[in-house]
Amino acid sequence: MTSTNQMPDEAAIRAVIVKRAAAISAKDAAGVLATETTDVVLAGLAPPLRFAGPASDMRKGMEAWFATWKGPIDYEVRDLKVTASDAVAFCTGFVRIGGTKTDGGKSEIWARQTIGLQKVDGTWKIVHDHHSVPFYMDGSLRAAIDLKPN
Amino acid sequence: MTSTNQMPDEAAIRAVIVKRAAAISAKDAAGVLATETTDVVLAGLAPPLRFAGPASDMRKGMEAWFATWKGPIDYEVRDLKVTASDAVAFCTGFVRIGGTKTDGGKSEIWARQTIGLQKVDGTWKIVHDHHSVPFYMDGSLRAAIDLKPN
Repeated sequence: MTSTNQMPDEAAIRAVIVKRAAAISAKDAAGVLATETTDVVLAGLAPPLRFAGPASDMRKGMEAWFATWKGPIDYEVRDLKVTASDAVAFCTGFVRIGGTKTDGGKSEIWARQTIGLQKVDGTWKIVHDHHSVPFYMDGSLRAAIDLKPN
Repeated sequence: MTSTNQMPDEAAIRAVIVKRAAAISAKDAAGVLATETTDVVLAGLAPPLRFAGPASDMRKGMEAWFATWKGPIDYEVRDLKVTASDAVAFCTGFVRIGGTKTDGGKSEIWARQTIGLQKVDGTWKIVHDHHSVPFYMDGSLRAAIDLKPN
């Protein structure tokens, strides 16, 4: 049997990202939290600028967001690039977040994601998670939620 | 004499971030590019979702942005946290970007920054730079340019 901490680092890190994406898709807050350290810092799509709270607050926030979606969330990771040493790593790429909101409206957005990880007791854990879209500097200050990866 | 690549890693990485901030403040595109690898990837405040171009395009984009400011840019890095191994590192924190635009208007914005670095031939270089603000999910889709670090 191969346990996660015996996998080569890049493969183990990709497995964490895939596991986390599956947990988000399934609205499994505990599954998401299991991929993170307890002092994870989030810089998310919605305010505040960053969020670092106790796991209970993190979970509450996640579940409130999950509850805005009808059924599973369509959460696709694309162009995942892993830069890893044996103890510290970061991942870059895109995520597509789509699905049907509880009001029946369809939603789909592409965001950039940058994730920082550390190996803790042999297991890669997410310590920092930055998701965002840019905004239009045409005076409108609109969030650019209509962009696709190039 | 102590050269950068003989400094402990965290100190050397902080020096790169400080040097880069000073170059941005001084509108010194060459100085900014000197802190980055030639294949750096930017996920910036403005579209596109990410930018990875030849240095000449990178420079052109930077200089166009510099030209929207009258005088130096007030560029402050705050709460810089460095997570480093001996070859890969990432930095998180905030930046305050302020000053007077060429139309005379004052501008100040706080953003989150996540920077990925690799040690290349003994010198830490920026390979990934993600700056963003969140956006309001109140239906307005406005970029949250009025937030401050908590």
